[in-house]
Amino acid sequence: MATIFSKIAAGEIPSYKVAEDDRFFAFLDINPMVEGHTLVIPRKEVDYIFDLDDETYRGLTAFAKKVAEAIKRAIPCKRVGVAVLGMEVPHAHIHLVPLQKESDMDFRADKKQLTPERFKEIASAIAAEFKN
Amino acid sequence: MATIFSKIAAGEIPSYKVAEDDRFFAFLDINPMVEGHTLVIPRKEVDYIFDLDDETYRGLTAFAKKVAEAIKRAIPCKRVGVAVLGMEVPHAHIHLVPLQKESDMDFRADKKQLTPERFKEIASAIAAEFKN
Repeated sequence: MATIFSKIAAGEIPSYKVAEDDRFFAFLDINPMVEGHTLVIPRKEVDYIFDLDDETYRGLTAFAKKVAEAIKRAIPCKRVGVAVLGMEVPHAHIHLVPLQKESDMDFRADKKQLTPERFKEIASAIAAEFKN
Repeated sequence: MATIFSKIAAGEIPSYKVAEDDRFFAFLDINPMVEGHTLVIPRKEVDYIFDLDDETYRGLTAFAKKVAEAIKRAIPCKRVGVAVLGMEVPHAHIHLVPLQKESDMDFRADKKQLTPERFKEIASAIAAEFKN
């Protein structure tokens, strides 16, 4: 059965899309730690990131770098942090989190509540930088 | 001035080494979240991981994958988590953290206290798997 992330990448479930190509997809985390918190996934359904074949892994990390650069230009932050935990959804995904301070990367903290309009603004701002 | 991580990679400051080649170095975090928590660095001194040139970035992420596979074989865990925050030491480094559960990846939790003997055992176990 397709994972929720596969359905998002296929457009069957709506998301705030940030970037995509034929192999990878990036969208805003709906329960963000901070504004601009983005998830990057391969369209290929593999649960554990280190089980990806080398070519897909290399492509995914390269795609994530480009997305991180776009986030850094679009969202005020000192840098973009990276995390891969992946025990909730069985589809490898990289968290990219704009950081002002280390403690912004906190999986146990309360998530930010954003309006759909704000999500759209953020996604558009990152998407515009990704195309530059 | 050389960062503390450059001095570790050069052998000028002792560490519990896990793996190395001519461009990258992996060693146990001295303040681990869990047993087997490892740091992977490029020998090249660059503060922010996404400022690395593409070739070094690609090499670093490929090296980290091999180290993560060795950790998974050496340390009982469900998977190896990844994090890059990098605001403490101005030298790009990837945290690899063996996870039993998502909350094992917690930068705010108290760190594990291990004896030098235990650090050596863990480093040796991962190093042996890295060579396999």
